[in-house]
Amino acid sequence: MAVVTAQEVTERRLSEDQLIADWLAPLAGPAGLGLRDDAALLAPPAGCELVMTVDALVSGIHFFADDPPASIARKLVGVNLSDLAAKGADPLGFMLAMMLPDGLGNGWIKAFIDGLGEAAQQAAFPLIGGDTTRIEGPLALSLTAIGSVPAGKMVRRTTAGPGDVIAVTGTIGDAALGLLLQLPDPPAALMGLDAEQRGFLLDRFRHPRPRNSFAQALRAHASAAMDVSDGLVGDCRKLLRASDCGGVVCLDDVPLSDAVAAAVSVTPELLRHAVTGGDDYEILLCVPEQAFNTLSEEAVRLDLALHRIGTVTAGPEVMFTHQGGDMSFVHGSFQHF
Amino acid sequence: MAVVTAQEVTERRLSEDQLIADWLAPLAGPAGLGLRDDAALLAPPAGCELVMTVDALVSGIHFFADDPPASIARKLVGVNLSDLAAKGADPLGFMLAMMLPDGLGNGWIKAFIDGLGEAAQQAAFPLIGGDTTRIEGPLALSLTAIGSVPAGKMVRRTTAGPGDVIAVTGTIGDAALGLLLQLPDPPAALMGLDAEQRGFLLDRFRHPRPRNSFAQALRAHASAAMDVSDGLVGDCRKLLRASDCGGVVCLDDVPLSDAVAAAVSVTPELLRHAVTGGDDYEILLCVPEQAFNTLSEEAVRLDLALHRIGTVTAGPEVMFTHQGGDMSFVHGSFQHF
Repeated sequence: MAVVTAQEVTERRLSEDQLIADWLAPLAGPAGLGLRDDAALLAPPAGCELVMTVDALVSGIHFFADDPPASIARKLVGVNLSDLAAKGADPLGFMLAMMLPDGLGNGWIKAFIDGLGEAAQQAAFPLIGGDTTRIEGPLALSLTAIGSVPAGKMVRRTTAGPGDVIAVTGTIGDAALGLLLQLPDPPAALMGLDAEQRGFLLDRFRHPRPRNSFAQALRAHASAAMDVSDGLVGDCRKLLRASDCGGVVCLDDVPLSDAVAAAVSVTPELLRHAVTGGDDYEILLCVPEQAFNTLSEEAVRLDLALHRIGTVTAGPEVMFTHQGGDMSFVHGSFQHF
Repeated sequence: MAVVTAQEVTERRLSEDQLIADWLAPLAGPAGLGLRDDAALLAPPAGCELVMTVDALVSGIHFFADDPPASIARKLVGVNLSDLAAKGADPLGFMLAMMLPDGLGNGWIKAFIDGLGEAAQQAAFPLIGGDTTRIEGPLALSLTAIGSVPAGKMVRRTTAGPGDVIAVTGTIGDAALGLLLQLPDPPAALMGLDAEQRGFLLDRFRHPRPRNSFAQALRAHASAAMDVSDGLVGDCRKLLRASDCGGVVCLDDVPLSDAVAAAVSVTPELLRHAVTGGDDYEILLCVPEQAFNTLSEEAVRLDLALHRIGTVTAGPEVMFTHQGGDMSFVHGSFQHF
């Protein structure tokens, strides 16, 4: 047990001060008070409420220790922006707790913060506060994201209704298969993809593309939404159960990238990974039938794919169909009947 | 490198769902939406702004792995409440990221959450959201605290002025000496204390007593404040430098508990630990001379000790005097001149 002594704390904190003043303060927005105070100070824009979410990423669990530091930063920012997007909220700012192993040198940390700044700036998402500490273990990062929505307009998980269309943005399964490519002995179907396709999948695992441009349309039209982070199948269940509904989802209608479609055509079992694997950071949403076309047109205008994949029912079952049959998923694995 | 597979994630998340629904949801306030959504939704009370801070605690750095789980929870809540108190903010709610090693069983986690609930309830500080994940390393906890202040009334770190009184609540150094008691070979002066005194010091290390009752008086009268978390000496410097001021602090006037005073009387060098050791979670504040008596009376009314320890100067030096001489601190260690 190595609790640091007072002197060690003081020495560490001195370099923490430099880290904050020299590298992190340039990322700060007005609510961060230049990172020179103990807290952030903010108020929602007039007529708005605050939406807040926290996501922690840990080395060895959510990313690989040897992933590029800027990629880890982009993922950290992206997964949290994705939560705001799914709630129909616009980014206001974030707070960051960094638990840094001694082995990470200044070069690594600088590259991480540069990546953080780039990802945050692209999303108009300033740093407003944080904490930095040592860890005798893996790098651990916790980001608290703050967004704003017009009062009463947050898109809930609990408000889908029977008859609503179930739809999803983008493509599903890219990140899950990208992860397989990083593990030992990737499936032959993935190794058979061309280099560009493999690069695409890996990029999708490392770099979420949060759909913040879609937030305004979502809050105008969607009845319920969440982001797809733990696998489409499980997240469909979560959303529909939270809404006290059921649903029928047609897995043949789930949008797949060319890379995933090519791999699944060789090894059909890979569809299981695609729809349960997680890390998609797309938006799963429900929308009343009469509003679906309007929402689709908004998506087209934003150059964003939106696909209908099912229908909300009175429930309670959530069913997944595939090639004319039912597909059953238990603990992320599935059995054909 | 052991990135978990899709199936493992799904299995872990199922128990995470139970953890949230059965153990954490009872701690949730209205802004937490029953922890059934992806985000918290809140607005400041009318006429107020939000004050936000994050503090991470890591096993082996901020607490011992074998500390009682309820103590770790109280410390986590306490250090964050202390930041709100020092800013003159009243607690509104908190978000919690828990990074849990596999070795922690349900019994440990339940005891931790019970302690969390008790500490939070005492402070009217509901849980409003969070994240739970595995870590292949030490327990790591990150808490984001949200408080409210009347607009424009947050007590800054940057607004002390020359001539202001420097004062501190409570007593200083208890936690630092309590930590020494938990390390191998505590100093003889500490082992010579009676059991009650040793118990007091250990309790002060494990269980911060955040001064939230003082927040209203602080925002009415203090010119600047921060909580004492990294050692009084370093924190005095931080506050005064952030205010572009200097100061003279008389270490003979720093309030010491009977236990610390007894230990220092045996081994005077222990004063160094007392004033640099950190984990005090008292409030260091500056207040115009003419308001000091009013603030003192407020403290008396709240049964809280408040001691004048120095004076703000135009700067830039921050000097510490002791027994008629100057005492110099370098990187947490000090030399007599």
